[in-house]
Amino acid sequence: MTSWQRYCSRIIRYEDLGISLDYSLMDYDAKFFPSMSGRIKAAVAGMKRVEAGKLENPDEGRMVGHYWLRTPSLAPAKFQAGIKADIAAAKSFAKAIHTGKIRPQRGGKFTRLLVIGIGGSALGPQLVADALVNNWSAPLRTHFFDNTDPDGIHRVLSEIGTDLARTLVVVISKSGGTAETRNGMLEARAAYEAQQLNFSKHAVAVTGTKANHIESKLEKVATKNKWLKIFPMTDWVGGRTSIMSTVGLVPAALQGVDVDQFLAGARAMDAKTRTLPAAQNLSLMLALMWHHAGGGKGAKDMVILPYKDRLVLLSKYLQQLVMESLGKEHDLKGVKVDQGIAVYGNKGSTDQHAYVQQLRDGVPNFFATFLEVREAGGAPEPLKVEADFTSGDFLQGYLRGTRAALYGKGRESMTLSLPRLDAFNLGAIIAAYERAVGFYAYLVGINAYHQPGVEAGKKAAGEFLSLMAKVKGALGAKPHTAEEIAALLQADPEAVFHALTHLSANGGAKRRGGKSPAEDRFSK
Amino acid sequence: MTSWQRYCSRIIRYEDLGISLDYSLMDYDAKFFPSMSGRIKAAVAGMKRVEAGKLENPDEGRMVGHYWLRTPSLAPAKFQAGIKADIAAAKSFAKAIHTGKIRPQRGGKFTRLLVIGIGGSALGPQLVADALVNNWSAPLRTHFFDNTDPDGIHRVLSEIGTDLARTLVVVISKSGGTAETRNGMLEARAAYEAQQLNFSKHAVAVTGTKANHIESKLEKVATKNKWLKIFPMTDWVGGRTSIMSTVGLVPAALQGVDVDQFLAGARAMDAKTRTLPAAQNLSLMLALMWHHAGGGKGAKDMVILPYKDRLVLLSKYLQQLVMESLGKEHDLKGVKVDQGIAVYGNKGSTDQHAYVQQLRDGVPNFFATFLEVREAGGAPEPLKVEADFTSGDFLQGYLRGTRAALYGKGRESMTLSLPRLDAFNLGAIIAAYERAVGFYAYLVGINAYHQPGVEAGKKAAGEFLSLMAKVKGALGAKPHTAEEIAALLQADPEAVFHALTHLSANGGAKRRGGKSPAEDRFSK
Repeated sequence: MTSWQRYCSRIIRYEDLGISLDYSLMDYDAKFFPSMSGRIKAAVAGMKRVEAGKLENPDEGRMVGHYWLRTPSLAPAKFQAGIKADIAAAKSFAKAIHTGKIRPQRGGKFTRLLVIGIGGSALGPQLVADALVNNWSAPLRTHFFDNTDPDGIHRVLSEIGTDLARTLVVVISKSGGTAETRNGMLEARAAYEAQQLNFSKHAVAVTGTKANHIESKLEKVATKNKWLKIFPMTDWVGGRTSIMSTVGLVPAALQGVDVDQFLAGARAMDAKTRTLPAAQNLSLMLALMWHHAGGGKGAKDMVILPYKDRLVLLSKYLQQLVMESLGKEHDLKGVKVDQGIAVYGNKGSTDQHAYVQQLRDGVPNFFATFLEVREAGGAPEPLKVEADFTSGDFLQGYLRGTRAALYGKGRESMTLSLPRLDAFNLGAIIAAYERAVGFYAYLVGINAYHQPGVEAGKKAAGEFLSLMAKVKGALGAKPHTAEEIAALLQADPEAVFHALTHLSANGGAKRRGGKSPAEDRFSK
Repeated sequence: MTSWQRYCSRIIRYEDLGISLDYSLMDYDAKFFPSMSGRIKAAVAGMKRVEAGKLENPDEGRMVGHYWLRTPSLAPAKFQAGIKADIAAAKSFAKAIHTGKIRPQRGGKFTRLLVIGIGGSALGPQLVADALVNNWSAPLRTHFFDNTDPDGIHRVLSEIGTDLARTLVVVISKSGGTAETRNGMLEARAAYEAQQLNFSKHAVAVTGTKANHIESKLEKVATKNKWLKIFPMTDWVGGRTSIMSTVGLVPAALQGVDVDQFLAGARAMDAKTRTLPAAQNLSLMLALMWHHAGGGKGAKDMVILPYKDRLVLLSKYLQQLVMESLGKEHDLKGVKVDQGIAVYGNKGSTDQHAYVQQLRDGVPNFFATFLEVREAGGAPEPLKVEADFTSGDFLQGYLRGTRAALYGKGRESMTLSLPRLDAFNLGAIIAAYERAVGFYAYLVGINAYHQPGVEAGKKAAGEFLSLMAKVKGALGAKPHTAEEIAALLQADPEAVFHALTHLSANGGAKRRGGKSPAEDRFSK
């Protein structure tokens, strides 16, 4: 078979969407599909159960409803009106902000947007903003708090400056219990107050609600203080797939994104990827190729190479979607499997000048996914940078060149092509990957919808903070070693030492350095 | 041994710098250091040869001089004056821009900076800008072209808008032959001309020079058109280590960064990491732990987790530095080894809400490096977000919690701590990793200073573009398949098909879709 014949036989093309997946440079053998046929059927059946509202997240006893957000008619009847109402509310609130029907405390119009969230409550809005919004023409200029770094927070607030009076804040947290987001909200509130502004007159909450049977501290705060608006989150949408819920839609609508088109793109991709054969199901094929590449055990990293500046955050978004969904210790039967696929990447052709050297010549522990956007975009009249070529022609040349060069050394790749980058196509590509992750989870028999591994870190952090408070209380005028203070508190000397070191770097203790950590002494 | 004893015995602390490396959670055994002793000595000797100006990049016959940039006295005598002159020139040119001694064509002062480069000529300046520069207080607001995406370029130009008249452009390319950078320069020039501005009166080149025995098309263009200034690049500094050459220093000085402190930090780290024992050499220890983690074969990915928003680009910077340096097919003896270490990461504690689920529970194919910045920074009066705690306390808590949670599941990590984030410490950390990469290359016997694998992609791209021009010429009024046109041109039908598809998406051809790529027909 020539490479051309292989290309023609290993491509999925949705002519009506202009979207295609070329998997001709994945070297599976003739046995692969037959060997997977049972799993393929099970995966399609599993995804059918998900969309039908079965409890496919058994550990948390939750339905998995993010596909309903773009096709409400699929949802259980009791949820359908809510989904439509949320979309309408996001759009009408955005309109009220844009037209000045809702105004900031001191009048004028809102000109900036500060989104406070973390994980799924930040990455989705960040991706949408970077991919679809142009700062110079958007109704609001957008900023993010996505961490609990006081320096990072201070930096954003300094950048906003006195424009805070015209800044709308959207705080996103399902339970209101995520400390990073809570801290960001408190820091923002303090900044408004420092400018003699009433934070509540600039604030919006996106959070779980009593009406949706979720207890949320954020809902209580927002209700009590009469924030501008509360948008509900539901129990059946997880953080990493919340981009088409109020979490993603409220910021998107505020930034002027066509949320209907965004949802329509996802809906169109969902419709294409529900059924067999695999050779016509783009998401299932992605999942199968991941399985082939890593032997169903994540033995190869997934390198995401979008040849489009606006998609530079896509790899980070997919990193969360894939790794948090698939990185699981146990399978559905409780067997220890240590599953997952590592994901990284930035953008082409920029990465060609960075780590592509290793991709071609180095440790062959990855497969690549090229993302092509066919319409080059840019200025209405493209500049000819050479007699025959535009910058966009070069971009295409580098995509083709790198794909060929990698394969020349036996490095496998797929190429996913979009006709152009807009709300519709971003929606489509997100849906394609959401479903690929869903299929893959069934292929390897894991629950893609929980995240049991993140609790341990939070718990350990809480214990460390409690200890730090005790350590602070135990500090005296006389210098002591970490071991001495630990003995007093009956605590682990290493943890005590880290608490002491942190305190001494931030004005809470004095440190006299010794030859080793054991000899450092600390006092008030 | 308790974990505290282990911590005290497996830490490198530079008390005078306030920098430390904790490697107590790397589970090497008692045999590891003895087994490495020969390689360790060879690595130290190799780095000594590098700094002495031996031709340690044998394939390219080049010296490796980036360490001289911060300690000119180490350099061969003939280079010393040049290094000092370059630093002085960067500073004095920046001063002339800041004070308005050098003004834009239409008067006033320069208020924005557009840096055009790719790979090492973009990532370094981007890291410095994000880590050290505050847009609201910097003398110039900085933008980048780092690709040949016309849409990305258009977006930056639209953001700058009519401020182009006050924008200084710095074009960075050693040979002037990098197409992405050349294209960016041409696009920028066209934008100036569209605003009736003379590009040359706003442009600066950082490039190889005849005086430095480098042929550069960019030098010729800049000389001929009397650009504001030409800063020289040298043959003995590679792109991925050029951040302390004119490549990094010119943009840094223009943005108001203290370049002397930046260089001093690197110089201080260099001085600490030249000699044995390994237990006092932070860079060598990093390299040894990489070797331990991946068995000297890159079997584990390196996850970089800086707990500091301003260091979010560090993982991308290190991704280039490590992967382009270490990702090599052959060792120095010519044996095929497929070396390298994959690097990825963003920032903590944000990543805790993304892929840390997989790190703790999933495929154990990585080791982590936590980056701690001890002083929390932020507003002068930190806000108490709880009775006892600031946002910065939480950040520290999450670092400690995640480190503990990962190790609780046997995932190894190191923690590199800086007293604060400033020019000095950024310089120090870059030097630490540059040297770690240098040591590691000797531990595994490869050349860290060439990049033979990147040429194939460029060559294939050039061939594709030539073909595309021919394909355009071969298009007629009557629709033809890719195979038919390929037969005419005696070319590969698949490449012809990709050229046709690209042309048809961008106004250069008409496409009538068939059932498969073989049946698509194209005409003028």
